[in-house]
Amino acid sequence: MTTSGLWITLEGGDGVGKTTQAALLEKWLGEHGRRVVRTREPGGSDVGALIREIVLHHRGDVAPRAEALLYAADRAHHVATVVRPALERGDVVLQDRYLDSSVAYQGAGRVLDPGEVRSLSLWATENALPDITVLLDLDPKLARERLDAADKPFDRLEAEKADFHARVRHAFLSLAAAEPKRFLVVDASRDPADISRAIQQRITALL
Amino acid sequence: MTTSGLWITLEGGDGVGKTTQAALLEKWLGEHGRRVVRTREPGGSDVGALIREIVLHHRGDVAPRAEALLYAADRAHHVATVVRPALERGDVVLQDRYLDSSVAYQGAGRVLDPGEVRSLSLWATENALPDITVLLDLDPKLARERLDAADKPFDRLEAEKADFHARVRHAFLSLAAAEPKRFLVVDASRDPADISRAIQQRITALL
Repeated sequence: MTTSGLWITLEGGDGVGKTTQAALLEKWLGEHGRRVVRTREPGGSDVGALIREIVLHHRGDVAPRAEALLYAADRAHHVATVVRPALERGDVVLQDRYLDSSVAYQGAGRVLDPGEVRSLSLWATENALPDITVLLDLDPKLARERLDAADKPFDRLEAEKADFHARVRHAFLSLAAAEPKRFLVVDASRDPADISRAIQQRITALL
Repeated sequence: MTTSGLWITLEGGDGVGKTTQAALLEKWLGEHGRRVVRTREPGGSDVGALIREIVLHHRGDVAPRAEALLYAADRAHHVATVVRPALERGDVVLQDRYLDSSVAYQGAGRVLDPGEVRSLSLWATENALPDITVLLDLDPKLARERLDAADKPFDRLEAEKADFHARVRHAFLSLAAAEPKRFLVVDASRDPADISRAIQQRITALL
């Protein structure tokens, strides 16, 4: 492997296995001598942790445009203070959710224009896009069963309706279809080790 | 006076007398039977109070684009949940700072493009603009002396350099010159009661 920085984002609905895949990839990258920065949005920076509290745990509604702007603010600070410095050091950034999540969720919510939400994120980050985006694709019903089995508490987005999650899945797949070079779409119902090997193959080809 | 809603914003650097003028106007409007909602940005809503804590009191830097997005998020929630409902009820909204402050301060800071910052605020609020914006114009040196005399603690912006405050003043005056119909520029070194009468005259003409 080379020593240039590499930015990998993991996308998909809640319960598709992003955390499991991030852990497997971190281990694999470490075994190949790469320094890995595991991070996430929202909440991957000091300022972001404060913003995350507002967007995910505020009691009472947050106006739709305010919510989109808060996610973009989190993203701006995260990319400027965590992602870019790590890439400049030559590290691998392994990130749970990025702008595709904002576009997919806001688009599925049908309140804001997905194109405007994307533009907002690109303004926030001065057009920063990952080298690879892994989309873990799974039927929302299966994802729901996994979350129930894990007995995880739901946050605001998780509590929304099943129909909404179906639209989120469709939105993610559309984003992947529009940027086939950046996206790797993986069937998330497969064995986690198999999924990880597919991702490793793509990363190896890139390095 | 009519009973239609009216939205008045007060602008200018720290120490120009916005709070004093808001209090005088609130009293005068009340005497004329108008219901007044006194508010401010940042921090004029429940979500805004949380955002205000981040932008004004976070220890450590906030990335410039993150800061602009946080102000815009505060604005989006404030307009949607406080300003619009009040105007629809027919109240007078009397507001300390609005998007002109973001444009002037960010423009004076010379990091972000003022036009982009303005666009961000207009997207946040779906193009909401006040009926009247009162710009209290004062030499920053005099404003500084007032703040020192009042022994008020400085927040992050107040602590910036004198040269910066001169650029903020110039930026506010440029904004006023570009929108003479919306802005009323007042010499803030005058007697507070005189200033209030000038503002009252303008409001009366509007109603």
